[in-house]
Amino acid sequence: MYIPQEKYLRTVKAELQQRLNIISQWNIQPGSRILEIGCGQGDSIVILANLVGEEGHVTGVDPAPLDYGDPFTVAQVHANLKSSALGPRITFEQATLQEHLESNPDTQYDYAIFTHCLWYFGSPEELNPMLASLRGRAKRLLIAEFSLDARGDRTTVPHLLATLAQGEESSRVAGVNYDSNIRSLHTPISIKKAASEAGWVLDKESYVDNPPEALDGRREVQAVLSKEYEKGIACEPDEIRRRFAEALVEALKAAIDSLGPGEEVRTMSSWLGCFA
Amino acid sequence: MYIPQEKYLRTVKAELQQRLNIISQWNIQPGSRILEIGCGQGDSIVILANLVGEEGHVTGVDPAPLDYGDPFTVAQVHANLKSSALGPRITFEQATLQEHLESNPDTQYDYAIFTHCLWYFGSPEELNPMLASLRGRAKRLLIAEFSLDARGDRTTVPHLLATLAQGEESSRVAGVNYDSNIRSLHTPISIKKAASEAGWVLDKESYVDNPPEALDGRREVQAVLSKEYEKGIACEPDEIRRRFAEALVEALKAAIDSLGPGEEVRTMSSWLGCFA
Repeated sequence: MYIPQEKYLRTVKAELQQRLNIISQWNIQPGSRILEIGCGQGDSIVILANLVGEEGHVTGVDPAPLDYGDPFTVAQVHANLKSSALGPRITFEQATLQEHLESNPDTQYDYAIFTHCLWYFGSPEELNPMLASLRGRAKRLLIAEFSLDARGDRTTVPHLLATLAQGEESSRVAGVNYDSNIRSLHTPISIKKAASEAGWVLDKESYVDNPPEALDGRREVQAVLSKEYEKGIACEPDEIRRRFAEALVEALKAAIDSLGPGEEVRTMSSWLGCFA
Repeated sequence: MYIPQEKYLRTVKAELQQRLNIISQWNIQPGSRILEIGCGQGDSIVILANLVGEEGHVTGVDPAPLDYGDPFTVAQVHANLKSSALGPRITFEQATLQEHLESNPDTQYDYAIFTHCLWYFGSPEELNPMLASLRGRAKRLLIAEFSLDARGDRTTVPHLLATLAQGEESSRVAGVNYDSNIRSLHTPISIKKAASEAGWVLDKESYVDNPPEALDGRREVQAVLSKEYEKGIACEPDEIRRRFAEALVEALKAAIDSLGPGEEVRTMSSWLGCFA
């Protein structure tokens, strides 16, 4: 896929700004040893590696295939980061958290971090054992995920509704549409519940608004308004579930139509939880 | 249940105003013969009987039990209306539409009207045969139902989300929770589709804002935030469906929390369709 360079840079900048807004809330100290779970292409890693300084280290684990990603693959971006000045402070590992912890049984971390990755999990039940396995391995647990909260702003209502629509889809066709961005709809409450069950104690929670340029909201809206999504609904054999899925799409379209001239879909704010 | 008279009168007034706003869009002529389906206690009938004048007539059919309703039952309200000056222009029949049409095979109507009753149907599939049976018996078909559209107003987002939550519930436990207000989530698109399949042609559609005093939004929010609703979700054996239902309730709570000081939940606007 060809993306004009200017547009691509704008997107990258917005994504980095979003991560920076989140991570700057966590007051991470130089010299920290960090484990980032579900690091993807490494958007947060760049910022974290900068914060921990020369004495610190950031390990990013993600089981995603290395050829995932567009216009650059995971492998390309990782190689680029590794060859940068921050390279020595970064380790990437293509592995699940479990694999990583088992193959490094003595490594301890100051922070275990999940930034905007829980919704990609194959199933919401995967979170509990992960959080349990981090007990005794990390001093603090930091989690950021989009909230289900439009925060009174009508330009974020479409992102909320597109998220609910995909949450409905994933409750109906779990495992089938692996391309969906929201396969595992976690919320502040479900995250706090999972953390508590794993023995973590909530220290602080807050919300961070995302920059207007962040594309997550628009991307989720496009996914739900796609022909493919419509086809998926049309295949649903249960009439009443199909109707409910259609109603969610209709509510989304209405929310977009209600935006004023010049108003664009904005990404919802992120919820941040800090556990000890 | 005891309701202070002043509060009860305010509620009745808001409900009548809401129906008046809707019905006044339809330009109903004096002398008209009207069939109202799902007339309930007769909120719309009062207004319609007034509009059609002495030469007109309004027949209201509803299969609901006559002891339904609080603080006054359907039977009480009907008896009261029948004994009023408008009484001679009104006929109430405890019957389904099918029963009514079959027992009055030669009666023709100028209008067949559904005002805010489709969501009470036991199943959304009930609408199609009803609309088909009205072909040749009524010249025009007028339908009003709440839209799934917050219309850019954050005070109506809770009504939208409470509606979606109950739509989800009815897709999961159809027929079980007969007390739910939304057992059959129809939307402008699903209504237009059903009408078209039954041979009706859309003449005009529009939206009408509901008065700030209308209680529908607050009532649906209360229903979803009730202990009973929570218990219903907790019983859901399918983990992923239970989580999605919980997420809808959480999104609703967030939408309420985001209201400013003095802001109250407002009822969504109504969608109106006029078919010939």
